[in-house]
Amino acid sequence: MLAGGVGGSRFVRGVRQAWPEASITVIANTADDITLHGLRICPDIDTMLYTLGGGIDPEKGWGRREETWSIAEEFTAYGAEPRWFGLGDRDIATHLVRTQLLDNGYSLSEVTQVLADRWLAELPGVRVLPMTDDRVETQVVITDPDTPAGQRAIHFQEYWVRHHAEPEVRQIVQLGIEDARPGPGVIEAITDSELVLLAPSNPVVSIGPILAVPGIRGAIGTTEAAVLGFSGILGGSPILGMAHKLLPAIGVEVSAAGVGAHYGARSRTGILDGWLVDTADAATVDELRAVGLPTLAHPLLMTDPELTAQFVRAGADFVTRNRPAA
Amino acid sequence: MLAGGVGGSRFVRGVRQAWPEASITVIANTADDITLHGLRICPDIDTMLYTLGGGIDPEKGWGRREETWSIAEEFTAYGAEPRWFGLGDRDIATHLVRTQLLDNGYSLSEVTQVLADRWLAELPGVRVLPMTDDRVETQVVITDPDTPAGQRAIHFQEYWVRHHAEPEVRQIVQLGIEDARPGPGVIEAITDSELVLLAPSNPVVSIGPILAVPGIRGAIGTTEAAVLGFSGILGGSPILGMAHKLLPAIGVEVSAAGVGAHYGARSRTGILDGWLVDTADAATVDELRAVGLPTLAHPLLMTDPELTAQFVRAGADFVTRNRPAA
Repeated sequence: MLAGGVGGSRFVRGVRQAWPEASITVIANTADDITLHGLRICPDIDTMLYTLGGGIDPEKGWGRREETWSIAEEFTAYGAEPRWFGLGDRDIATHLVRTQLLDNGYSLSEVTQVLADRWLAELPGVRVLPMTDDRVETQVVITDPDTPAGQRAIHFQEYWVRHHAEPEVRQIVQLGIEDARPGPGVIEAITDSELVLLAPSNPVVSIGPILAVPGIRGAIGTTEAAVLGFSGILGGSPILGMAHKLLPAIGVEVSAAGVGAHYGARSRTGILDGWLVDTADAATVDELRAVGLPTLAHPLLMTDPELTAQFVRAGADFVTRNRPAA
Repeated sequence: MLAGGVGGSRFVRGVRQAWPEASITVIANTADDITLHGLRICPDIDTMLYTLGGGIDPEKGWGRREETWSIAEEFTAYGAEPRWFGLGDRDIATHLVRTQLLDNGYSLSEVTQVLADRWLAELPGVRVLPMTDDRVETQVVITDPDTPAGQRAIHFQEYWVRHHAEPEVRQIVQLGIEDARPGPGVIEAITDSELVLLAPSNPVVSIGPILAVPGIRGAIGTTEAAVLGFSGILGGSPILGMAHKLLPAIGVEVSAAGVGAHYGARSRTGILDGWLVDTADAATVDELRAVGLPTLAHPLLMTDPELTAQFVRAGADFVTRNRPAA
């Protein structure tokens, strides 16, 4: 499964609920990663591990439960910048472990395995793999009248966490993506799987970067597995996050149909064998089927893992039934 | 003043109490510094800043008051090594600020100034300078029958914090000391001062490394200021720390007289113009005077800043009276 952070983690929990015995490999987005205060932070991987391992803050959906904020208080007292990215003490421990291992020459995949040894200890068969061990960074080019060019590029986290996705978006760039290589096991996971799932994560800054790592889109195009996507846009707006601010910048309509068409049908040079939209978007089913994309409308709210498991199973049944025989 | 950590900090607080208007420059030992979990830790500088700035844990005498331990819990859950050096969350914030600034190319002196901007904000005239910006590290060579050579060298912190000063000490080495240069302002502080004080800190691993930085001992030998030392050995044992375990390794008797003779009288190639011993050691006064070291017996317990201020003033009066006219 290809997945981003908060929504992706909830989705994975539902998938695990649907098939408790299945081997599940999560290919996680790393283009949101950022270095702050000298700490290497991988928000999507951490949210995934914390969620699966029971360490997530259940109210926020990100960060640690029973978190303390002593270091943030001290940073304020020292005037340490930046202040817009809140880091809890327990979360910082993860970043310290990661940063030191990376500094000692371990790859992000190896480091993620060390962290997963703790968080996924009770979930045999579940793996979380970084999409790449190479440095990739999503930059958002925003309108800024105070600059000579009228625009400037900022890190995705700065756009989202600091500026709350308010600036006008001109362009989205994944720095380093052309030279990124898929992380160890990523291509094999896609090639050897029975079912490839695209989580209802952000198509622009979560699923987008994963698909843009050279080799991953090709592996999805040729895998014998069925490829099933889930819309994160319900009734015209995202359940989580800021996809509605970013989709226009890549020329995609903010709708379940727009995103479905963006991924496209595998039979027509796209990547999907099936597409699930919410019942609120049932009207688009015929439209998408007309362009070759087998689409099913089903309630897609992930309010608890069992509801998520239900639509995951429904989607799997649907794509298996609708897939052309090999 | 030349000073180490816990005892040195209490001493400095007393000196400040004795002369609230004085300019006070603390030259702090950095040979205890250590890197753990990727964090650069300067125990003596931090204890000094926390103590002077009111942030110290008053019961332990080191570490932060109102400390939390979330990261230590997380390190344990991750199995992160080493576990023998306890780091509180607030303390880690200091190390994060320091480590990032050092990684960005700032010197330890510059970084210490940044930290001091917070901790010494209400103490105009008080400065804390690292003895050197170069890397110096105290290693303790201990007996270890499990090694081929029967001995091995460990970092001072490992000897003290992990092994509680229990192993037999063969030798004490300051790695890097020959090439260390005095930190900016250190020589000038000694040369331009009216009074140079040696805190009752550990003569082997606190005052010893400071004096061993090439140039510092020479500056103390030639300054026009009076040089006054205070014994940290009271009645044959140290008030704090493990000096009694280390003095024998450098051939010095564990007594106020032994340490006084080790520093020596400036009139006889040593560094002291005056030496204060506790009243418990009054019997040694004549013995030390006989070898040219003007010595005064006075209660030296630092149980509160006012008592410390009393013996600091008494020592200053004594050394001024007893000093040969220039």
